[in-house]
Amino acid sequence: MWNTIGVIGGSSCGENICELAYRVGYLIGKNKVVLVTGGLGGVMLHASKGAKDAGGITVGILPYGKEDANPYVDIAIPTYFGLARNHLVVRASDVLIAIDGYVGTLSEISFALNEGKTVISLFSWGLDEKRITKGRYIKTDEPEEAVKLALEALR
Amino acid sequence: MWNTIGVIGGSSCGENICELAYRVGYLIGKNKVVLVTGGLGGVMLHASKGAKDAGGITVGILPYGKEDANPYVDIAIPTYFGLARNHLVVRASDVLIAIDGYVGTLSEISFALNEGKTVISLFSWGLDEKRITKGRYIKTDEPEEAVKLALEALR
Amino acid sequence: MWNTIGVIGGSSCGENICELAYRVGYLIGKNKVVLVTGGLGGVMLHASKGAKDAGGITVGILPYGKEDANPYVDIAIPTYFGLARNHLVVRASDVLIAIDGYVGTLSEISFALNEGKTVISLFSWGLDEKRITKGRYIKTDEPEEAVKLALEALR
Amino acid sequence: MWNTIGVIGGSSCGENICELAYRVGYLIGKNKVVLVTGGLGGVMLHASKGAKDAGGITVGILPYGKEDANPYVDIAIPTYFGLARNHLVVRASDVLIAIDGYVGTLSEISFALNEGKTVISLFSWGLDEKRITKGRYIKTDEPEEAVKLALEALR
Repeated sequence: MWNTIGVIGGSSCGENICELAYRVGYLIGKNKVVLVTGGLGGVMLHASKGAKDAGGITVGILPYGKEDANPYVDIAIPTYFGLARNHLVVRASDVLIAIDGYVGTLSEISFALNEGKTVISLFSWGLDEKRITKGRYIKTDEPEEAVKLALEALR
Repeated sequence: MWNTIGVIGGSSCGENICELAYRVGYLIGKNKVVLVTGGLGGVMLHASKGAKDAGGITVGILPYGKEDANPYVDIAIPTYFGLARNHLVVRASDVLIAIDGYVGTLSEISFALNEGKTVISLFSWGLDEKRITKGRYIKTDEPEEAVKLALEALR
Repeated sequence: MWNTIGVIGGSSCGENICELAYRVGYLIGKNKVVLVTGGLGGVMLHASKGAKDAGGITVGILPYGKEDANPYVDIAIPTYFGLARNHLVVRASDVLIAIDGYVGTLSEISFALNEGKTVISLFSWGLDEKRITKGRYIKTDEPEEAVKLALEALR
Repeated sequence: MWNTIGVIGGSSCGENICELAYRVGYLIGKNKVVLVTGGLGGVMLHASKGAKDAGGITVGILPYGKEDANPYVDIAIPTYFGLARNHLVVRASDVLIAIDGYVGTLSEISFALNEGKTVISLFSWGLDEKRITKGRYIKTDEPEEAVKLALEALR
């Protein structure tokens, strides 16, 4: 079975965040780990494009049908669960990297922590550490460091 | 169709939080609104007990089977979806009151906001307002005020 | 906790089948058991109307939002899972009565059997008995008999 | 995006059915189509082994965690939805081949038809054609023919 890293974040992104997502995806692909995203635009698209440029494989777990997938998704999992598909993105990811993001991303971060997983934050939500009783939430400002931490969590 | 208010929070609670949950549930039942919870212990149990004592009806949307429901659940919806049932708790609730809670509660708060719903916080998570681009997150310290705000959001 | 009987069948029905569904719903309500349906039209609507006329309580587990519920649903559970909500209809029902129906009803019957539940068939699918290795599939032509068998399976 | 064919059937199989599943999986892999299964034993395992032997890629959509996947699953999607994961197997498959099987397989066949998909049956359930108002259910006795029909349905 192949290892997976999930990348979560908004379905649109400013230039800086898009570049960050691309870089993270590229490094995941380069390391021969399968990239899992929600399959749509923004952070999901740029991470998937990066992974493909590095020769990687990408999975997109979609809120509705296949027709919504960005062009860099290899394997589309259309759920028709709407935003509840966020849970499946988390479950399909051995470890997650959150990049920026809004309440949708927060639902994925919190669900991942609730499942005891490690989430690496790149400019994403600040959270009250005292209430995080499960999982690990690690902050960094560097995409290289984020992927390095994620790869370590895979072991 | 009957209106519903969801009460979310931890599956165990200290005395103060348990009393708060009971009071909130009691007021929901008194106002003839159906109470929706995750059906387990702690905040869920005490809110449901309150609602029953006030003559109300309670729904428990369970992570696994009916046998896990607390004794104050009238209508059990066993999902066998594990923690992903949190999405269904949110969807079944017209408006939500979050009482204290940890990462599981955060997953419900963020999912509710992501769906554009109103969440009333009673001593629950502090969140970065700038990132809340959907839904409404309102804080209060009083159970009476929380239920009043929830009832207003129903209209 | 209250017992539940699920009634499953098509979202439109001819006069005879609609009457049968009404009669089944009426008897369920009369026996103080909560009726669970998929919340839409046809067999679901007529069973729910029957249950309400008998003073019962009805739950509608909807494929999308609350706005789709028929007027006889008391407690709406909007799932936004599309046809996958059929699984939740089955899980929320202690026992099921299938009335007529097409492939959607078959997905509910087979899932219920797969979960080891009892399904009473009123003019619904004929199935190859040899392949039914879990659950029970009982046929009858009379609504009174169907509800009687369902009530017995509750015990 | 890559095309997918789902293979559904029992989690254990006699020698003949296991060989049939292997052959079907092998032909799917040979044709550079991604194989989707439920990720467990029996028909799922033998089809996945066949696909891997032919150089293909396999996805396993699991009822619970990754640890349950058979050794021939490349990309595991752990859902923790129990048997309700059957819906996701269907949704992730552009077309399906049902091999033998019991009520679990029937839930997948009926759900696929309900979604308007084509299902090729290899010694699987006989169904009352009059009630199949959506999708297509095609029978054949030959694995080569089954895969040929599935590939045609992809176009």
